Amino acid sequence: MEGRIRTVPGFSWFGKNIGIKDKSLDFGGILSDVPCQAAGVFTRNTMPGAPVVVGREHLRDGMLQAVIVNSKNANVATRQQGIEDSREICRLVAESCGIGAQMVLPSSTGVIGRRLPMAVIVEGCKTIAQDFGKTEQHVQNFAQSIMTTDTRRKVASALVGGATLLGIAKGAGMIEPNMATMLCYFMTDAAIPSSRLQPMLRRAVDKSFNRISIDTDTSTSDTVVALANGLAGPARSHEFEEALSEMSIYLAKEIARDGEGATKLIEIVVSGAQAAKQALATAKSVINSPLVKTAIYGADPNWGRFVMAIGKVFSYTVDIADLRIFFGDGESRPKIDAEALDQDTVPLEPISEILKRSEVRIEIVLGSGPYSERVWGCDLTEGYIRENAYYTT
Amino acid sequence: MEGRIRTVPGFSWFGKNIGIKDKSLDFGGILSDVPCQAAGVFTRNTMPGAPVVVGREHLRDGMLQAVIVNSKNANVATRQQGIEDSREICRLVAESCGIGAQMVLPSSTGVIGRRLPMAVIVEGCKTIAQDFGKTEQHVQNFAQSIMTTDTRRKVASALVGGATLLGIAKGAGMIEPNMATMLCYFMTDAAIPSSRLQPMLRRAVDKSFNRISIDTDTSTSDTVVALANGLAGPARSHEFEEALSEMSIYLAKEIARDGEGATKLIEIVVSGAQAAKQALATAKSVINSPLVKTAIYGADPNWGRFVMAIGKVFSYTVDIADLRIFFGDGESRPKIDAEALDQDTVPLEPISEILKRSEVRIEIVLGSGPYSERVWGCDLTEGYIRENAYYTT
Repeated sequence: MEGRIRTVPGFSWFGKNIGIKDKSLDFGGILSDVPCQAAGVFTRNTMPGAPVVVGREHLRDGMLQAVIVNSKNANVATRQQGIEDSREICRLVAESCGIGAQMVLPSSTGVIGRRLPMAVIVEGCKTIAQDFGKTEQHVQNFAQSIMTTDTRRKVASALVGGATLLGIAKGAGMIEPNMATMLCYFMTDAAIPSSRLQPMLRRAVDKSFNRISIDTDTSTSDTVVALANGLAGPARSHEFEEALSEMSIYLAKEIARDGEGATKLIEIVVSGAQAAKQALATAKSVINSPLVKTAIYGADPNWGRFVMAIGKVFSYTVDIADLRIFFGDGESRPKIDAEALDQDTVPLEPISEILKRSEVRIEIVLGSGPYSERVWGCDLTEGYIRENAYYTT
Repeated sequence: MEGRIRTVPGFSWFGKNIGIKDKSLDFGGILSDVPCQAAGVFTRNTMPGAPVVVGREHLRDGMLQAVIVNSKNANVATRQQGIEDSREICRLVAESCGIGAQMVLPSSTGVIGRRLPMAVIVEGCKTIAQDFGKTEQHVQNFAQSIMTTDTRRKVASALVGGATLLGIAKGAGMIEPNMATMLCYFMTDAAIPSSRLQPMLRRAVDKSFNRISIDTDTSTSDTVVALANGLAGPARSHEFEEALSEMSIYLAKEIARDGEGATKLIEIVVSGAQAAKQALATAKSVINSPLVKTAIYGADPNWGRFVMAIGKVFSYTVDIADLRIFFGDGESRPKIDAEALDQDTVPLEPISEILKRSEVRIEIVLGSGPYSERVWGCDLTEGYIRENAYYTT
């Protein structure tokens, strides 16, 4: 899946600079030759951005044909004017491409609370019918144009039966998606009605983007959309959902790995829980603990912080006699358990060696319950602080 | 209250170095000439430290006469051996001071998961009957000996009627107390029965230590204890509780201000809420948002992050038309409201000026509901990362 990027028959892309802030790519689009069955999942933040409001409207009939995205400005907390700006962009794109404005899903990402520079965007929309193209370079340009503090593009593709599935995501900060996520667009030429695509997408998002956290902050702009143009004919539901889930997890991990200032991808698996909620709450408590994140950054085998983070899930009790923490993979991975505690033989050096890796996997066994959960995150470094202390100034 | 430190008649203190880790003060104690009515509030972390377990036992009858504290080692996740070590320390202190072991409350603070160096502590206990003294210097030594990453001592005293109240606290990281707090000891010569002192202390803690957060991490060692030796005779309950509350808030703010790496104390007031829970959840969401904390660190008027943090409290809806955010104090303080958003006149420069202060006060009005809450925290800086990436190595 991580190999070369496949384009999807019937889709075009563009990514270009229109000068919203600087010279980097800041405006991008996706266009299907034919109307698509579509599904979307949006932020649960109660102050959603204008494009989320307009996008929900446009997706109501389960049909979309284009996506238009600007970076550098999120068009959030811009009140009625922001919504009108977002609608106007959809109208301009639709006019340029010869489709209905309701068929365009708008997204914006960047700073909150500034009006979109509409004069610049109106100018940028004039040529977009010519900007669209069907090559891998066009895909990469689009992926680049939606980046903000991301340090790399996040693209994945896969063959599913006779159809192709392509996913493009962005996200590096303000990341603790809840019922939704950052920006991510899936395109396929499989024929899947919106009514089936929507629950598939929600399940895939729940296992992937809803299981990552960079900084516990839930964006106002989170949007995941899937477009199916049907050109390759019907897909097997089960096979397609598996590919969609796998790709969602891959892209979610890419986002966690590219967390602002991050040097490491962290995977936390919690098992042996008495309830699914306990497993998830514990995994989130650990992945979100600044003291765990900084210890992993420094490869400091300060394992007591894991105990602290497990213990601050107040709704459930864990007996430290049952608790086991495994670092890394394989039979001989270092572990902490009652025996190591009683005999004072916690293997600090081997734990530190695991924490030095660029991918750190930690498994926490709470007891003998049947529930488990898996989440991803990243370490917390000076880079996160530097990137966020002077973001708008 | 913040002026000179008053000692409390009938109490003695010491703080000294016994070489647990380095040459800094690491062992301290409080002793009353007579048995005290006592009250305590402990961590809700489900993996409490051994001294918390022993302390709860010893406080069960509402009586204490001494407190013994070591820093540099938290005696947490040390299993049965840790509990036995903690009991042994109480026994040694009791023997040395001629009181019962059940009258001693033990505390330990520092790294989690290491056994106490008992040989060193046994040696240190031998002379403590002579170490205790009644001067302000003895108070300061005790306050110094319980510090870990704290950069300054946290001591406050007040006169309450004819009695004196003295509070000594420590805390700088792993701070989001819940039903409890870091280490804090109150001493008074007022006569107050334990049965009245306990609910007073719980209410005071709830308004103060339970309203601060440095890093969302809840310590396994949090302990607040109040000792009343009664030498000054009965106190007026109302007056005493007011002094206790005020001192708790002062010491809680001192802890938030001294947060690891922090450069600023932040106070968030949320009002106009429909429910007390909404007010507290919103205030906590804002004070704990890494993006809000880094923006305040950089004095970046990135006010959209406040909107984001308010909006990620999913259980309640806020209409952005009703939302008002005030920065600083006084009539002419800069604000954000619907009018400023509609007219694009948010005063960025004045907001940035407020954020440059060493104490930043922000008031968030959610609507016209009757509930309000106040919380304290600090900014998030590179200093926090540096301090925590290599804590044990």
